[in-house]
Amino acid sequence: MRVARLLDSLDLPQDLKRLSPQDLDQLASEIREEIIQTVAKTGGHLAPSLGAVDLAIALHAVLDSPRDKIIWDVGHQAYAHKILTGRHAVFGSLRQFGGISGFPRRDESPHDAFNTGHSSTSISAALGMAKARDLKGEDFTVVAVIGDGSLTGGMAFEALNHAGHLKTDLIVVLNDNEMSISPNVGALASYLARLRTEPRLLKLRQDIERMLEGIPRIGKELAESVRRLKGSVKYLVVPGMLFENLGFTYLGPLDGHDIPSIMRTVEDARAKGGPVLIHVVTKKGRGYAPAEADPRKFHGVGGFDVASGELSRSPGPPTYTQVFGETVARLAAGDPRIVAITAAMPDGTGLDIFGRLHPERFFDVGIAEQHAVTLAAGFASQGLIPVAAIYSTFLQRAYDQIVHDVALQGLHVVFAVDRAGLVGEDGPTHHGAFDLAYLRSVPGMTVMSPADEEELVAMLSAALAMDGPVAVRYPRSQGWGQAALRPASPIEHGRGVLVRDGDDVAIVAIGSMVHPSLQAAVLLERKGIRAAVVNARFAKPLDEDLLFEVAGRCGRVVVVEEGTPVGGFGSAVAETLARRGRGGHAIALRHLALPDAFVQHGSREALLAACGLTPSHIARAAVDLCEAAGTDATRKRRSSPPRERNELAAGAEVTGWQAQTMLLRE
Amino acid sequence: MRVARLLDSLDLPQDLKRLSPQDLDQLASEIREEIIQTVAKTGGHLAPSLGAVDLAIALHAVLDSPRDKIIWDVGHQAYAHKILTGRHAVFGSLRQFGGISGFPRRDESPHDAFNTGHSSTSISAALGMAKARDLKGEDFTVVAVIGDGSLTGGMAFEALNHAGHLKTDLIVVLNDNEMSISPNVGALASYLARLRTEPRLLKLRQDIERMLEGIPRIGKELAESVRRLKGSVKYLVVPGMLFENLGFTYLGPLDGHDIPSIMRTVEDARAKGGPVLIHVVTKKGRGYAPAEADPRKFHGVGGFDVASGELSRSPGPPTYTQVFGETVARLAAGDPRIVAITAAMPDGTGLDIFGRLHPERFFDVGIAEQHAVTLAAGFASQGLIPVAAIYSTFLQRAYDQIVHDVALQGLHVVFAVDRAGLVGEDGPTHHGAFDLAYLRSVPGMTVMSPADEEELVAMLSAALAMDGPVAVRYPRSQGWGQAALRPASPIEHGRGVLVRDGDDVAIVAIGSMVHPSLQAAVLLERKGIRAAVVNARFAKPLDEDLLFEVAGRCGRVVVVEEGTPVGGFGSAVAETLARRGRGGHAIALRHLALPDAFVQHGSREALLAACGLTPSHIARAAVDLCEAAGTDATRKRRSSPPRERNELAAGAEVTGWQAQTMLLRE
Repeated sequence: MRVARLLDSLDLPQDLKRLSPQDLDQLASEIREEIIQTVAKTGGHLAPSLGAVDLAIALHAVLDSPRDKIIWDVGHQAYAHKILTGRHAVFGSLRQFGGISGFPRRDESPHDAFNTGHSSTSISAALGMAKARDLKGEDFTVVAVIGDGSLTGGMAFEALNHAGHLKTDLIVVLNDNEMSISPNVGALASYLARLRTEPRLLKLRQDIERMLEGIPRIGKELAESVRRLKGSVKYLVVPGMLFENLGFTYLGPLDGHDIPSIMRTVEDARAKGGPVLIHVVTKKGRGYAPAEADPRKFHGVGGFDVASGELSRSPGPPTYTQVFGETVARLAAGDPRIVAITAAMPDGTGLDIFGRLHPERFFDVGIAEQHAVTLAAGFASQGLIPVAAIYSTFLQRAYDQIVHDVALQGLHVVFAVDRAGLVGEDGPTHHGAFDLAYLRSVPGMTVMSPADEEELVAMLSAALAMDGPVAVRYPRSQGWGQAALRPASPIEHGRGVLVRDGDDVAIVAIGSMVHPSLQAAVLLERKGIRAAVVNARFAKPLDEDLLFEVAGRCGRVVVVEEGTPVGGFGSAVAETLARRGRGGHAIALRHLALPDAFVQHGSREALLAACGLTPSHIARAAVDLCEAAGTDATRKRRSSPPRERNELAAGAEVTGWQAQTMLLRE
Repeated sequence: MRVARLLDSLDLPQDLKRLSPQDLDQLASEIREEIIQTVAKTGGHLAPSLGAVDLAIALHAVLDSPRDKIIWDVGHQAYAHKILTGRHAVFGSLRQFGGISGFPRRDESPHDAFNTGHSSTSISAALGMAKARDLKGEDFTVVAVIGDGSLTGGMAFEALNHAGHLKTDLIVVLNDNEMSISPNVGALASYLARLRTEPRLLKLRQDIERMLEGIPRIGKELAESVRRLKGSVKYLVVPGMLFENLGFTYLGPLDGHDIPSIMRTVEDARAKGGPVLIHVVTKKGRGYAPAEADPRKFHGVGGFDVASGELSRSPGPPTYTQVFGETVARLAAGDPRIVAITAAMPDGTGLDIFGRLHPERFFDVGIAEQHAVTLAAGFASQGLIPVAAIYSTFLQRAYDQIVHDVALQGLHVVFAVDRAGLVGEDGPTHHGAFDLAYLRSVPGMTVMSPADEEELVAMLSAALAMDGPVAVRYPRSQGWGQAALRPASPIEHGRGVLVRDGDDVAIVAIGSMVHPSLQAAVLLERKGIRAAVVNARFAKPLDEDLLFEVAGRCGRVVVVEEGTPVGGFGSAVAETLARRGRGGHAIALRHLALPDAFVQHGSREALLAACGLTPSHIARAAVDLCEAAGTDATRKRRSSPPRERNELAAGAEVTGWQAQTMLLRE
């Protein structure tokens, strides 16, 4: 018979306040079990969330959420917080299409004080809330929980600097697990390690003060030294000096799995007032042996076997990430100028391979995308060829550095833009929707996207041989395996390829949408519509000759991209056709892209279908266009009868209408 | 008779190495005089450059540039460096059209190791150069010179953290003048102030070490404390602990106007190896009494009278910046929810007025655009209405925060985007060319631009009353005074206005280009061409109804904007017209915008002319379009004879062709 669980009987979070330390520990175990069992099925950020269970319990036991605000930096450690704040019953839907998010979301619960997903934002947001409280004459506690990895992000430092200056009541909990996703790098990490290994520093300070009291006065000069030392010692001989120097009171380090100790310290911090940093030391993966043993492997997982700790593996072709990682490592073996840069994502970007093979040319800069890009510019200024591999959504952090430090000097930096397009379960904070738009606006930038993994290999070689800034964007997915375009034609700068000929309608696609467009052309052929398919390869510079040729011939163009409809590849096509369109007959244009809205979480397949980016959607758009364009008497028609249109959508998991209501937010 | 100047007789920079300290000081005075006399005429960054004269001399006296690399953070303090490295003869052309840049530029001199302009990039670039040196087995010194203001930018911290970890030879000179542009804020500034006022800390450490040697052993516990203290003291009781904690050796603080002292310390740093931070204390405006007395006023000036220190003042209407500053301060008086945020630019943004009137609601966060935006999001999450006033080019730093922290939560933050479009003499690092593109790509964003200062006032009121993120972008210029559109029609969300009717061609303009378009319409009227002029007001959402109506009626559209041609307002029009253009006749479209290239420095008027954004250029484009569209038999024609076209360009200072060769870089 199973023992009744506290988790099922309590009214949370308020009941936390009346639990004994033993009960709190029991609850922590139950929550861990819940997280492990759920994430084994749904996938998710297992190790970070297991590490922060006790911390979440302690915070909610002391604080009065949602009146008091807790901001979880990144938010991937907040599963216990979700379970504690009314989402226990729906926790099984974690990260699933229509289910709860893997990150805090204000529209999901009033207990989620601020949406997070990207790193290092929490202190800024918390400070805004704290000052708003002061201005409005309100009274509540604001706590930002930030990992030691996130603390390396520059904006966290900007916020500490400002908070230390404003001196309002604000608690920052530094959740120090010695890792970001992979082990932390940087001088700050070494500093925190020193703090952890000198836990008795506070005692030492007391000792020194006592000792100074007892020193006999020996000569005037020494007496003066002692006097000054006494004045300085309180600033100088304290642990957490770095934070004290920035205007924070430092408390810690504490055992982050000792709930009563954390509770007491949060109370102390509240009583102390002003900006306080509480340093708690946690173990990533705590409570699940395989994750404790290999927290890097269990940072974010797709699903696993609880008993064995074996990760679920998808059969089939390698991912773009793997192909990128292997290719760039291989190319670097033949060219000593190639260096690789990652911002705390050696595994996620596939650069771990490079790091093993060429450790002296491999740079993990921590969560610091801005620095990563300007560091790359520094390398390039000396004739090296830096490859900066950064996820599309995180590269947003370095937009200014791309413009100002790379492009303005025409430096040859290769940007490997992984996770471009929809990333799936991580949802709107992580989708790479904007890179085609924000990169295309940069003067002198080359922006490419491969149709498949074979083309990725070719594009990487080509990118390394080009001049100026070059971006190659590719999706978070497996490649196309046997379906890949073979033999691939060589990559020529600014040239697309006609991968299928036709003269009724031209489907102009880039990157991940090329193969679906070819599949759409097959569907269209069955309807008697002959579709040309262009693999554009380059969003910038666009192959205008090819576009004019095929658009002029077909008179109808369907543009397809996995990115924002505003300013991206489709806009490039529209800009170009508009330039051509002086007088004469118009080219009929349909644009299939992500919506101009934030797309929610779910499997990549479900989301692509909901966004209308499947072969059947593409085919349907082509059919529509052929019908509509029929009003143009000069175009020949060979279109299908309208009745059959719905058939084409059969492959979609949800309709566009459902997508509007389920997926999109303004 | 005038005494012969060293500056005219030396072969610089190499001759520096054989000058006496007295001669170096003499040279410094001559350079200061040169800077003062020149900037009085050309305008420029007077106070920062005067403060760094001795530092520049000391660095070039010790180092062997261009073999050794000096990277000047921001670069506005590098005038002495320019004079010392072959640009003395052309220094009078500073910031002038076709003259030398006000910032370091690799294409201007091999001594300019890296282009700068934006803050906080130098350590990243320097670290890239240093590691490239190591990888290539070369041997040179890399020095980044960074101000205390720039050090508050998060990416400087990211770079320090990484440099402290890599431990390669790298010298960072902290040029501490206690100011960024206005006095520094933030805990770091207080920390540096403590360092400056405790110059004897190093001696104190020595004292303590000696004292500890002499303490009699009194009991086991105290003896142990002393032992531990001895081990810790070298980490704990040193000035510059914050930097030592980040892995740097700290040397200083030094007098930044004592050339021999700086020279010795740079030699020491080189001998020491690894990452070294040299803290020099300088006085902004040094050597020119009015600038020493008011460095904030003389940070960046347009020209001044050397004798009196009176700044040149342009007659005429107030600037957009002034109108913004007064308006937002006035509106805040009536609404306690309004708070204002600047990133170290209280004067430049006009928010100094707000700061004086509502100090408790005014937040200067330092050079920290990322934090500024997420802080605003924190405010907005609590029901306040934050106005973040940030220059267009610097807001690039916060693109991710706009997407991730503001728009994704639909928070109501008002972005006052000053210096949008061409800024003039500061050149390509400072032009606000990209905001229409990068802001338009953000879901749920409203992007507006006023035709004149009257409309700016109306738009600010409207923006404060809207929902979600709202950007108002306006140029660095004076308003239109009497020419402003009066009476202004009320601002309706997503609605443009037809400000002049016509049916031959529609000129669709936004922001700064509305009045020039009206002037173009007058020119066109003389040619018998009746041009409609649309003041679009909104780049997002675009007034599609109005666009369709006027485009459909005229058949020819000239779109005009002061921004990138890639992804901006013109792209919005092209996207929209492409969507409409199914079958039927095409709308003939011409797009006048900045080039897809970096525009160089010069007066705003010269640059606008060179970029083809004057009334005469707009009129000529309309004439061209009417002629070209004549091939479309369905359009009525009322165009001018082609011979007269050149007349229209008479107002331009340079032709488009000259612009291509003089102004643009790929």
